[in-house]
Amino acid sequence: MTESESSPYAPLSPPVIAAIRQAVGDACVIQDPTKLEDFSRDAMAGIEKFPELVVEPTTVEQVRALLQLANVHHFPVTPRGLGTGLAGGAVPVFAGVVLSMAKMNRIIEIDKNNLIAVVEPGVINADLKRAARRQGLFYPPDPASMDTCSIGGNAATNAGGSSCVKYGTTRDYVLGLEAVLPNGELIRTGVQTRKGVVGYDLTHLLVGSEGTLAVITKLILKLLPHPPAVSTVVALFRDLTSAMSSVSAILANGCIPCALEFLDRNCLDLVGDSLPFESARSAGAFLLVQADGAATVVDAEVEKMGAYCLDNGAIDVIWAPDSYKRAQMWEVRKQVSVTIENSSPVYIPEDVVVPIAGIADFVDNLPDFAERYQVKIYAFGHAGDGNIHLNITAQSRASMSQVEEGIYAILQKVVSMGGTISGEHGIGLAKRRFLHLELAPANVCLQRSIKQVFDTNQILNPGKIFQ
Amino acid sequence: MTESESSPYAPLSPPVIAAIRQAVGDACVIQDPTKLEDFSRDAMAGIEKFPELVVEPTTVEQVRALLQLANVHHFPVTPRGLGTGLAGGAVPVFAGVVLSMAKMNRIIEIDKNNLIAVVEPGVINADLKRAARRQGLFYPPDPASMDTCSIGGNAATNAGGSSCVKYGTTRDYVLGLEAVLPNGELIRTGVQTRKGVVGYDLTHLLVGSEGTLAVITKLILKLLPHPPAVSTVVALFRDLTSAMSSVSAILANGCIPCALEFLDRNCLDLVGDSLPFESARSAGAFLLVQADGAATVVDAEVEKMGAYCLDNGAIDVIWAPDSYKRAQMWEVRKQVSVTIENSSPVYIPEDVVVPIAGIADFVDNLPDFAERYQVKIYAFGHAGDGNIHLNITAQSRASMSQVEEGIYAILQKVVSMGGTISGEHGIGLAKRRFLHLELAPANVCLQRSIKQVFDTNQILNPGKIFQ
Repeated sequence: MTESESSPYAPLSPPVIAAIRQAVGDACVIQDPTKLEDFSRDAMAGIEKFPELVVEPTTVEQVRALLQLANVHHFPVTPRGLGTGLAGGAVPVFAGVVLSMAKMNRIIEIDKNNLIAVVEPGVINADLKRAARRQGLFYPPDPASMDTCSIGGNAATNAGGSSCVKYGTTRDYVLGLEAVLPNGELIRTGVQTRKGVVGYDLTHLLVGSEGTLAVITKLILKLLPHPPAVSTVVALFRDLTSAMSSVSAILANGCIPCALEFLDRNCLDLVGDSLPFESARSAGAFLLVQADGAATVVDAEVEKMGAYCLDNGAIDVIWAPDSYKRAQMWEVRKQVSVTIENSSPVYIPEDVVVPIAGIADFVDNLPDFAERYQVKIYAFGHAGDGNIHLNITAQSRASMSQVEEGIYAILQKVVSMGGTISGEHGIGLAKRRFLHLELAPANVCLQRSIKQVFDTNQILNPGKIFQ
Repeated sequence: MTESESSPYAPLSPPVIAAIRQAVGDACVIQDPTKLEDFSRDAMAGIEKFPELVVEPTTVEQVRALLQLANVHHFPVTPRGLGTGLAGGAVPVFAGVVLSMAKMNRIIEIDKNNLIAVVEPGVINADLKRAARRQGLFYPPDPASMDTCSIGGNAATNAGGSSCVKYGTTRDYVLGLEAVLPNGELIRTGVQTRKGVVGYDLTHLLVGSEGTLAVITKLILKLLPHPPAVSTVVALFRDLTSAMSSVSAILANGCIPCALEFLDRNCLDLVGDSLPFESARSAGAFLLVQADGAATVVDAEVEKMGAYCLDNGAIDVIWAPDSYKRAQMWEVRKQVSVTIENSSPVYIPEDVVVPIAGIADFVDNLPDFAERYQVKIYAFGHAGDGNIHLNITAQSRASMSQVEEGIYAILQKVVSMGGTISGEHGIGLAKRRFLHLELAPANVCLQRSIKQVFDTNQILNPGKIFQ
């Protein structure tokens, strides 16, 4: 673990471990030290802590039993989806028990007539997408990790993705939840219908709460009819500023693309050769623009959006690449963060959002930051909603304090522009020291009090979000 | 007031009134008894209570000053938008001060480049729509009262409307808020960007909280590009069941209309002659189907949806009526609840939502309820999201206990179907006795504790939501 924390929790005693085994059944307890490593981190490098025990339940009753014990014996429980988070949210910072939801992974129902899905939290995002697709339906949220991340984790972090520019984030698809409170009580929140305003919106309070308020055990999700057609245009630019001006032009002119993804020059240096377009590697910026909807209009829409790219200095525009090329391109886009991570000893994924109209200005200033703080910044992400993944790398951990300083400066800049320090990764452990940059003390104080309401004994994912 | 409540609050003393006047300025205090009546009720008939004082601030500092005093001197403050609510949420049930937000009504900014609006809470919904439209932008939420209701009230109740089937409710457009806590502190929540996951989602906790947690003083709203075209089809049916089967067919076949409004036979008896279609009055059900989007596709979309109506027993389908007829039709639709209210001495607007696939079944059973409980039920609403406004009327208040029994039975049925007792009006005062039908004690207990966190001294809109 990069941060040292003194633990307010005693190690699990043998009688407590016996009680856990008794309550949840031996079959779902993992205690073998060689297997605990897998639960010591998420996809955020550099932060790890071994749990003392892992519980991997298959029923909600097991979840309840574990939390009841934790609440009585005061041991920390860290809920975990499939470990693809990028903020250390699933790291058991005070050891104790990791509660892996991986095996509660049933798609309970895809209800075509009511356009909803009922799923357990361990379902993989892409599996739900496929199951919906088979019935002509669409579950839009599409984080880059969609082939390996869980719906429960998506809800815990309010995960976004490429389609957010048109379809919103996970929050917009969660109609209702079943969740276990830290005292073991089971609650149901929200509705199974398209809308409802009965009492406070606990559903959306739990979504994005990063497993600190309750453990989600079932989700009722909104589905849409699957869009009949999709079309894509790809544009290469000399620099990121022209690419971002194109983005502004596209959005200001009434287009609603379902993806507006970009890669900067540093990303193209790394992965440009894998892209199915000549000269991609030598370009200064890459923009992928996608539209979905009626077959009779999507091509015209991307044509219009391609024209805005040309108007704003695109050096090459490739309309409607075939589906093989499209798949290849998306694969490169999805793998870019892993490729960057593998290329650098120090890799810190930031996840800022700036107002759309400020993106070009903001990215213009990145080389200055990079030079001043001696880091290399790879920028890619969801240009359509201003969500820029700044992947900050350095060649040695020796310069970490300078790297941290640079990150702080960048986040300050983001907040001063009216932006936010996390668009979709969450705060977790990695960003809690920056929370005060964005949230005033009165706001944090309310949030802490809400945490206290849900988790009076502070046993659920302690040490996250707040310092 | 229909319900008798003993007040835990002392009447405002002359020194407290003087302190309020001093703090907020005489100009925004209304104490003239002849003017207080206007603030004694909302659009829900039969529930009224005069406030002792009305404060109508123009600045956030006045709101803060009033709440600070209320928190210290323990008098109730009932926030009020423009009084169009249908659940008694703005009725000052324990007298005290009504805080009217009507004069904080500036549209601060329509930011075309960032697709957001920044507004004060007293802005009228339709005024915001028009201001956005002038810049080619679109603010979708469209409650029937949109010409007279306020954005702040919309947010307080998470108001929906006809376009919810495609565009969602007010919640989906609130990105960030500025609000004053009951202790007078000012907080900012959420973001000015398209997404953000920094801490708990206080924004969406405040949305729909019916003015019981904080007073919203500024809203940052998401806007969309304005859809370039709209097209409509109207279908008349012998009975509501065929109309609802058509709705199911439309939604199950991948169509995404931007309105799917219905009127039942009782509504048509009342307003059918005002509709610009022959034979509307004699029909058993009326369905208005609207699509928006690219000009080249909307007509084809409504044609397809009209065909589903014919497949499901429509006796007449009128494609793409001219814009004059369309406006006339919408006006009738928007006025239907007022017309019903004016026709009956007892009028209770219910606002249930049932799963889409269950609508036909549900409405099939309404005549049984009507007969058993000796009421007349006018059903209309937003078929596309299962949100049915059941307007329950009776010819005399003498039969109120039977009416109440009938409502209870209907709401029980709704909940047993997986529906919700309020789709967009909220709980307020009118429905709090039904809250337990939908929310389990553990859920209500959490909500009460959250109320306690925000409003420790219970001075903000007391007596609402919870009994």
